[in-house]
Amino acid sequence: MLEEPFARIRASFAAQGLMQTFGAELTEISEGHAAIEAPITTDVSQQQGAAHAGVTFAIGDSAAGYAALSLMADDQEVMTAEMKIHLIAPATGEKLLAVGRVVKPGRRLFVAASDVWAISGAEHRHVATLLGTMVPVRA
Amino acid sequence: MLEEPFARIRASFAAQGLMQTFGAELTEISEGHAAIEAPITTDVSQQQGAAHAGVTFAIGDSAAGYAALSLMADDQEVMTAEMKIHLIAPATGEKLLAVGRVVKPGRRLFVAASDVWAISGAEHRHVATLLGTMVPVRA
Amino acid sequence: MLEEPFARIRASFAAQGLMQTFGAELTEISEGHAAIEAPITTDVSQQQGAAHAGVTFAIGDSAAGYAALSLMADDQEVMTAEMKIHLIAPATGEKLLAVGRVVKPGRRLFVAASDVWAISGAEHRHVATLLGTMVPVRA
Amino acid sequence: MLEEPFARIRASFAAQGLMQTFGAELTEISEGHAAIEAPITTDVSQQQGAAHAGVTFAIGDSAAGYAALSLMADDQEVMTAEMKIHLIAPATGEKLLAVGRVVKPGRRLFVAASDVWAISGAEHRHVATLLGTMVPVRA
Repeated sequence: MLEEPFARIRASFAAQGLMQTFGAELTEISEGHAAIEAPITTDVSQQQGAAHAGVTFAIGDSAAGYAALSLMADDQEVMTAEMKIHLIAPATGEKLLAVGRVVKPGRRLFVAASDVWAISGAEHRHVATLLGTMVPVRA
Repeated sequence: MLEEPFARIRASFAAQGLMQTFGAELTEISEGHAAIEAPITTDVSQQQGAAHAGVTFAIGDSAAGYAALSLMADDQEVMTAEMKIHLIAPATGEKLLAVGRVVKPGRRLFVAASDVWAISGAEHRHVATLLGTMVPVRA
Repeated sequence: MLEEPFARIRASFAAQGLMQTFGAELTEISEGHAAIEAPITTDVSQQQGAAHAGVTFAIGDSAAGYAALSLMADDQEVMTAEMKIHLIAPATGEKLLAVGRVVKPGRRLFVAASDVWAISGAEHRHVATLLGTMVPVRA
Repeated sequence: MLEEPFARIRASFAAQGLMQTFGAELTEISEGHAAIEAPITTDVSQQQGAAHAGVTFAIGDSAAGYAALSLMADDQEVMTAEMKIHLIAPATGEKLLAVGRVVKPGRRLFVAASDVWAISGAEHRHVATLLGTMVPVRA
């Protein structure tokens, strides 16, 4: 019986309580890429009503991490060693979309990045860019 | 009638939906310093049961931001331009404590930092360190 | 008399003593982009003979800065507020090439990035990626 | 015959061509700490006459790296995986002093930091703070 290729990534995502709290979904996963969406609601707002940087970071970091995990061996898990985020526009709209990618894979370290957009109807506004270091660890 | 000196910071914190979702509290605020606590629950977990990096980031970033805001003029708000986080140990335990401080105030930019600990009974484990750039903006 | 459009950028580059010490050249400048090259010699080596991270950083940071300056008003100068660098492969070969670009222009802050390659004959090896914050200041 | 405890670190520093080009000296080395000084001259200037960010970065990164190496096994070398720098004041004066320290040692990764001061007579001005990830590698 063939297993769905990224089944363990979907299972890992489903096991993240925070992603459920945010109502986030893993909408794409392929080799070296991952996308996550989350609604912008008052439950995740900052003091001016936009999505809090913590949500933007959480889905951006997870998208970069799963992009990296998609290129790792089956018995490996991924951990973020460090991550940088630039917040470049207010995260207002209906939902956030984070698209992660691998900049450089490696045996000991991966460099991974993601960009986050705020979506309002047909408008996509670029709200954040992330860059960081992922470490493969034994699961 | 005298106003509590950091009343606007407490009001700003109270207006952050995400901090309420996390059950977070602003436990300390003084000139150039701020502390925030949040319980570690399954609602904020990553796939292995520890607190998700998104929570650690959110309270670390907010603690650094309020530390900066405590030194700004009354008609200013604070925005994170960019923030870096190193995740140095698993965030397991009863609660997270983020302590923010100002590294360098400025007219146009503040450099601010924070450290996050996971607390289990009497044990404090250092789980993350953050460093970033805050911008004063007209409220 | 028409002035060469990026004359002030070329003048700024020529005024950097460090770029002369490195034998570096500004090989391209256009709106939002800049490229700088520097030879890899023992004068700029680290302990294992590759180019030192300090050189890779210096030309990567300058390429990002001039990419930003190319979009600023004539009476503005550019300063790096903060910069991040990932060193992803040893910087060995004949010369380094840094290519800078603007990720997000702004009135108060620019986000800029650059990538650095080590060139050996026809081979281009990606050795570093940089991302940071540039500030327009009155010249 | 007893060897000077940090002899291999002094040898590594002496083998860095860039540190010689900068006239830099390793002025302190102890477990988890290192200090490097370099004169501010027109050979290392940026366009306004202050020391170029590339020099500040180079000695700050090296101080952090040697602080980390001082805690590693004798058969290990250190490599910078990624490094962040905040430039918080102009680097003008007679010389730069970088003081590196280990924030968190580890088997696979070290978090290390450094601060850089510009010295003019008795005045020490804080000009930069760095934070990054160091990797122990087989020498």
